[in-house]
Amino acid sequence: MLKAYLAEKKELVERNLQKILERYEKPELYSEAMKYAVMNGGKRLRPILMYMMCDLFGKKYEAIEDIACALEFIHCYSLVHDDLPAMDNDMYRRGKLTTHVKYGEAEGILVGDVLLTEAFNIVANSSAVSDSNKVKIIAKLSEYSGFYGMAGGQFVDMKSEHVKVSFETLKYIHAHKTGKLLTAAIELPLIALDIEEDKREKLVQYSKLIGIAYQIKDDILDIEGDFSETGKESNDEKNEKTTYPSLFGLEKSKEILEDYITQAKEIIIENFDSNRILMDLTDYFGKRGG
Amino acid sequence: MLKAYLAEKKELVERNLQKILERYEKPELYSEAMKYAVMNGGKRLRPILMYMMCDLFGKKYEAIEDIACALEFIHCYSLVHDDLPAMDNDMYRRGKLTTHVKYGEAEGILVGDVLLTEAFNIVANSSAVSDSNKVKIIAKLSEYSGFYGMAGGQFVDMKSEHVKVSFETLKYIHAHKTGKLLTAAIELPLIALDIEEDKREKLVQYSKLIGIAYQIKDDILDIEGDFSETGKESNDEKNEKTTYPSLFGLEKSKEILEDYITQAKEIIIENFDSNRILMDLTDYFGKRGG
Repeated sequence: MLKAYLAEKKELVERNLQKILERYEKPELYSEAMKYAVMNGGKRLRPILMYMMCDLFGKKYEAIEDIACALEFIHCYSLVHDDLPAMDNDMYRRGKLTTHVKYGEAEGILVGDVLLTEAFNIVANSSAVSDSNKVKIIAKLSEYSGFYGMAGGQFVDMKSEHVKVSFETLKYIHAHKTGKLLTAAIELPLIALDIEEDKREKLVQYSKLIGIAYQIKDDILDIEGDFSETGKESNDEKNEKTTYPSLFGLEKSKEILEDYITQAKEIIIENFDSNRILMDLTDYFGKRGG
Repeated sequence: MLKAYLAEKKELVERNLQKILERYEKPELYSEAMKYAVMNGGKRLRPILMYMMCDLFGKKYEAIEDIACALEFIHCYSLVHDDLPAMDNDMYRRGKLTTHVKYGEAEGILVGDVLLTEAFNIVANSSAVSDSNKVKIIAKLSEYSGFYGMAGGQFVDMKSEHVKVSFETLKYIHAHKTGKLLTAAIELPLIALDIEEDKREKLVQYSKLIGIAYQIKDDILDIEGDFSETGKESNDEKNEKTTYPSLFGLEKSKEILEDYITQAKEIIIENFDSNRILMDLTDYFGKRGG
């Protein structure tokens, strides 16, 4: 059931992304490189989480469609900049050449820059959201991707290569580098849909738990996954990164992962009638292959 | 008179920038690099233009103070990314080491990213602007710095190195790479202050004229200026860029520059009672030394 849901929503997301990308015509090569960076074979997890929030509260998708594209633009910009030679220096992502390898390094920098910029343009121009909600969404979206969000996490992560870092720092990196955008994926639609505060808080808490789980699973996959499934080379070892497995060992890391999954599921059981799709999704965060 | 005005407003802008920068505490090194990139000895031309618009209409500065910082953040991000090895590869800007030389290349990329992101956060969180004006401002600010603005101009500029480009392309680059943010500096305060449409149109037209003048002067300074005044090495020749002087020669370029200055002044004479500060500013665009 989850598999079909994810596939169906992914198609919807890709259709909307394609439509938004049509706005960008000339310079043609810039437009082409932007499209390459966005239509990257990704799972579209963040936009799909947004659709799940609509379904959870029985709301139409209209209000969140543009915001879902904006968030995915920001996710894609972060991947393009992460892959740059000065950062992770990756040749491949999901089995395809990375944007800067395909189009050039300066082009990669400028593709990331423009995706980030246009994300805010998309929200500001969305016709389905009130001005007051747009402002709240832009405030959160920029916070979660900025200094106190993803960018901050990325900065500390980058400074932590080839250095043994504390568990505190590792948790900071995870919570910010990947966690904040997952929280955005849960919280932004709740703002757009005017969902009451107490439900929002529960779901934000849920997003934090699956965010950590996602990252621990990432660390595990970096060791156990193979290129054909993850589509990327093992970087953590190459860059001597501190990870859950490097701090706790592989088996203990799997136990910690399982514990976060259980806590996340408890929130759904206790507050959202054990919503099937969310329960399955939470399991997926512990079991995904790439 | 203009000199004193510019100095006074520059101090005001720097004070506001300092205050906004205090929001960013930890990661400390990230915060430090951000501050280095923003407190860069720049002229603060764009924020000062915003203050001029307030003065022109006899309005208080309150409504535009945050937006002025946001625009300056975007200008600073563009400088940091422009200076990167994959772009202009500049060691110095205004006589100081560029951000990536001082802090590292990955750090430079991430400083640019975060300044761009936080610019939108600053506008969204400004307490002096209505939600509906914030949305309009964010829509324009992202448009003028995005695909159809500065980033698009930068992309075409970068692709035009070591290539002889047409006058059409040169005009496209100038209008987008530098022109759009100068228009933002004029137009955003007019939105924030609810200035009527026809005055806005005249001033947007004015901003386009001084934007082109600014860029022609930049091309001329690249040949005639010395390091002590401009604080940067000559790049156009190094990067074999097409410029007004390379297309029309130095003398003819000076005539074209003078023509744009005259047209810009006519707008001020005919519509804004020959406002002294704006008249002097327009002259300054033709005569500045760096």
